[in-house]
Amino acid sequence: MNACEQSLANTPKRPPEGTVPGVAPPPPELPPDVLDRTAGEGSRADRWLLARLLSSLGSPPIELGIRGGARVAAETPIARVTFESRSTLLWILADTPLRFGDAYSDGRVTVEGDLVTFLEAVYRAGRRAGGERDSLARRAAHALQRPHVNTLSGSRDNIHHHYDIGNAFYELWLGSTMAYTCAYYPEPTATLDAAQVAKMDHVCRKLRLKPGESVVEAGCGWGMLAMHMARHYGVRVRAFNISHEQILWARERAAREGLADRLEYVEDDYRNISGHYDAFVSVGMLEHVGVKNYAMLGGVVQRCLGGRGRGLIHSIGRNRPAPLQPWIEKRIFPGGYPPAPSEMARIFEPWDLSVLDVENLRLHYAQTLRHWLGLFEGATERVRAMFDDKFVRMWRLYLAGSVAAFSTGTLQLFQVVFAPGESNDIPWTRAHLYAR
Amino acid sequence: MNACEQSLANTPKRPPEGTVPGVAPPPPELPPDVLDRTAGEGSRADRWLLARLLSSLGSPPIELGIRGGARVAAETPIARVTFESRSTLLWILADTPLRFGDAYSDGRVTVEGDLVTFLEAVYRAGRRAGGERDSLARRAAHALQRPHVNTLSGSRDNIHHHYDIGNAFYELWLGSTMAYTCAYYPEPTATLDAAQVAKMDHVCRKLRLKPGESVVEAGCGWGMLAMHMARHYGVRVRAFNISHEQILWARERAAREGLADRLEYVEDDYRNISGHYDAFVSVGMLEHVGVKNYAMLGGVVQRCLGGRGRGLIHSIGRNRPAPLQPWIEKRIFPGGYPPAPSEMARIFEPWDLSVLDVENLRLHYAQTLRHWLGLFEGATERVRAMFDDKFVRMWRLYLAGSVAAFSTGTLQLFQVVFAPGESNDIPWTRAHLYAR
Repeated sequence: MNACEQSLANTPKRPPEGTVPGVAPPPPELPPDVLDRTAGEGSRADRWLLARLLSSLGSPPIELGIRGGARVAAETPIARVTFESRSTLLWILADTPLRFGDAYSDGRVTVEGDLVTFLEAVYRAGRRAGGERDSLARRAAHALQRPHVNTLSGSRDNIHHHYDIGNAFYELWLGSTMAYTCAYYPEPTATLDAAQVAKMDHVCRKLRLKPGESVVEAGCGWGMLAMHMARHYGVRVRAFNISHEQILWARERAAREGLADRLEYVEDDYRNISGHYDAFVSVGMLEHVGVKNYAMLGGVVQRCLGGRGRGLIHSIGRNRPAPLQPWIEKRIFPGGYPPAPSEMARIFEPWDLSVLDVENLRLHYAQTLRHWLGLFEGATERVRAMFDDKFVRMWRLYLAGSVAAFSTGTLQLFQVVFAPGESNDIPWTRAHLYAR
Repeated sequence: MNACEQSLANTPKRPPEGTVPGVAPPPPELPPDVLDRTAGEGSRADRWLLARLLSSLGSPPIELGIRGGARVAAETPIARVTFESRSTLLWILADTPLRFGDAYSDGRVTVEGDLVTFLEAVYRAGRRAGGERDSLARRAAHALQRPHVNTLSGSRDNIHHHYDIGNAFYELWLGSTMAYTCAYYPEPTATLDAAQVAKMDHVCRKLRLKPGESVVEAGCGWGMLAMHMARHYGVRVRAFNISHEQILWARERAAREGLADRLEYVEDDYRNISGHYDAFVSVGMLEHVGVKNYAMLGGVVQRCLGGRGRGLIHSIGRNRPAPLQPWIEKRIFPGGYPPAPSEMARIFEPWDLSVLDVENLRLHYAQTLRHWLGLFEGATERVRAMFDDKFVRMWRLYLAGSVAAFSTGTLQLFQVVFAPGESNDIPWTRAHLYAR
C-alpha cells in the first residue's frame, strides 16, 4: 500500500458563517498575506471565500481562483488552482478533505503547475498551520473517523477494491518487479527496478535467510519477493494474500520460472496462517490490518516462530497517530491506516517480541513514487483506454499526493526487524547488511 | 544506568498458607519435578517451603537449601543456594523480589556456582513460568509499584544516591573511558576500552556530526563522550548533568586535555536546557527520567533543535512495560525505569519527531557488563577497603544480575536516532555507519 495524505485535511469542514449564497456580504478586506489577482471585477464574496480557504490551508504559495472570476494568491505562487464555478467551490468547502479529491477527479478543479510541488507546498503549509503539538482537533478527528472495517470479509472487500482492478493496469507502471511497496535505493540515482531488487535483498539480509529455511509471508502482492527469496536464498516460502488477481498472477509466474516446488501461494487471510517457520515477513500489508488487529497479528507471528526465528514488518507509518486522509481512505484504500510507532508496538509488546532494528525509509518511498508517477504519466493513454479520464485523474492525484506525503514527512516508511524475546539468535551488529 | 532485573520477581509476595511457623504441617509429598537432596533428616516443612519456592521460580536447574538442613533441587542443578536459616527463608518469602537481594548483600544467602549462570537460569525459568502473554498480575504490579519520584529535587537525590559515591570507586572497573553505559563491540572479541570508543564513534556517526556544529548532551556522566565529540568531530558541546562528582571530574579532565574551550559542563537538570543546537544526544539518562516526563523531554529536544538537526537517545529498555526489579529500584537505582518502545514513543509523538533508526544492542550490554564484572571482581579488595563486605556483595549481585538480564532478553538496549518531522536533512541510508 501507499497513500496520499493529509493534503487539504486542515481546511474547515463547514464553510465559514456568512459565506453561503444570498447571505450578508463578507468583510471587504482580504487578509494581509493574500493578494487579489482578480482580472476585472470578480465577486468580493468569492475573493473572500478563496482567501479564507487559502488562509485555512496555512497560506501555501499557490493561487486559487474561480474560472473566469475572482482569484487570490499568496506571494509568488508556484501553482494555480481553478474551481469550475462558485458552486463547486462551495461544495468543496463543505468537506474539503474528501471533496477536493472528488472534484479534481471529476475535472471540476484543475491545477496548473507541477502537481507534486503543489501538494508538497500544501502539506508544508498545513504542518505550519496545524502547529507542532498534538492538537485536540486532530485527536478528535482521529476518534471520529470510522474507516472501513478489517474483519475477515471486510478485509476481502477492501483489498478487492484496490488490488483486483486488473494486473495489466499495474504492469503499466510498477516496473518489471511488480513490487507495489517502497523500494530501497542504495544510491538516489538507482533505477526503480534495481531499487526494488535491492529492497528484496535488504529484506532478505535483515532476515538472515539461510538455504533450506522456511519463510511465511503475510500479504505477498504479486509474489515477487517470495520468488526472489526462493531463487536467491534457497528458502521455501508459504505466501498468503487475499487478492484473487494477485494470487493467480503469482502462481502463473512462479510456475513459469520453475519455482513452484519451493513456493506455495495461499489465497487466505493472515489470520488463518498455520504452521511453524524460521522467518515471518510482511511487506506492505500492515497498512490494511487496522490497529485493533495488531495484537492478533503479533499472536500469529508468535505462533509461527514459536520462540525462535525472526521477523520483519515493512509498513507505511506516521510520526504520531492520525487517520488516513479521508479521500484516500474512501476512494483508494478503504480500511487503510498507517500506524505510529506507539501503535506498531501493539503487535510486539503483548507477545514479548523484541524489536531489534527499525529503519525509516520515507525518502526512498518518495523516490519510488516519483518513478511510479513517471511511468503512470507515460501510460495515461492506455490507462484511459482501460478505464476513463476520471480514473486517470484520480490515480494521478493519489500518486502525486503520495510523493508529497513522503517527501514532506507527513508519512513514514518503517522496516522493523524483531525476534522472540527469549531468542539469542539475533545479529551481533548490522554490518552484514552493508558488506559488499 | 544499567540494572539487574526481574530476577526472583515471580515468587509469591506472601508465604503460602500453612507455612508460617507453628501452623499445621504441609503436605508430605514434594512436587514431581523437585528432588529431595536433604542429607540426613531435615524438616519436611522446610523441604516443602523450598520446593514451593523452586516451583514458583519456574523450576530453574538449581538447588535450594537451608544451612545444615533440608535441600531440594531440580534435576542437574547448576548452582546451589543456601539460606542461613529457616527464619531467613521465611523472611525472604514474604517479599522475595526485594529481600533476596538484601539477604544476599548481608551474607544471609549464599550462592555456590557461577552467579551469572545462576541468575540467567532464574530469569529463563521465570519467563517460562510467567507465560508469554501480558499477565494481569504483571500489569497490576506495574500499576502498584511507586518508584522514587523524578521531580527536579527527587532526581537530584536519586542521581546522588548512585553516581556520587566516589569517582575512585568507578575508576576501578569502568575502564579508561569512564563510560558507564553499553559499549559497542564491532566484534565480540573487542576489549572494553575499544568497544567504548567504538560506541562513541557509532553515536557520533549516527548523529553525522560535522566540524563547527553545536551539540547538547543531556546526562553526560563523566563527560568522556563530550570530549570525544569535541576532539574527534570538531564540535562544540554543552553537557548537562546533576551529579556533582561527575561534573567536577569532567571539568578537570577536559581542562587537562586542553578541550575546555570547546566544552561546557553544566551542573543542571535536562529540564533546564536552553539554547539551539545542531544535535541533541543523551546516552544512559532516559532510565532516570520517568515515563511521566517523556513528553517534557521531547519538548526540550524540540526546543533545542527548532525544526532542524537530529538527535539520539540511548537507553535501557524492555520488550513491554514493567517496573524495574524492586531491589534494584530500592538499593541501586532509585527512580529508575527502563521503558518499552510504546513508552519511548511518548518522547517523540507529541512533537512530530520522526524516528529514523532504532538499534537494539542488548547482547553488547551483556558483554559490557561481563567486562565490568570481571574488573570489579579483580578489585574487590580495594572496594572492600573503600566500603565494606556488604557493598561488595550488593554490587556483585547488581552487576551479575544485569549481565543475566541482558543476556536472557529481560532487558533491551535501544539506540534511537530521530529528527524533526519536517526536516529532510536525514541520512539516505545507514551505509555510512559501516564504511571503513
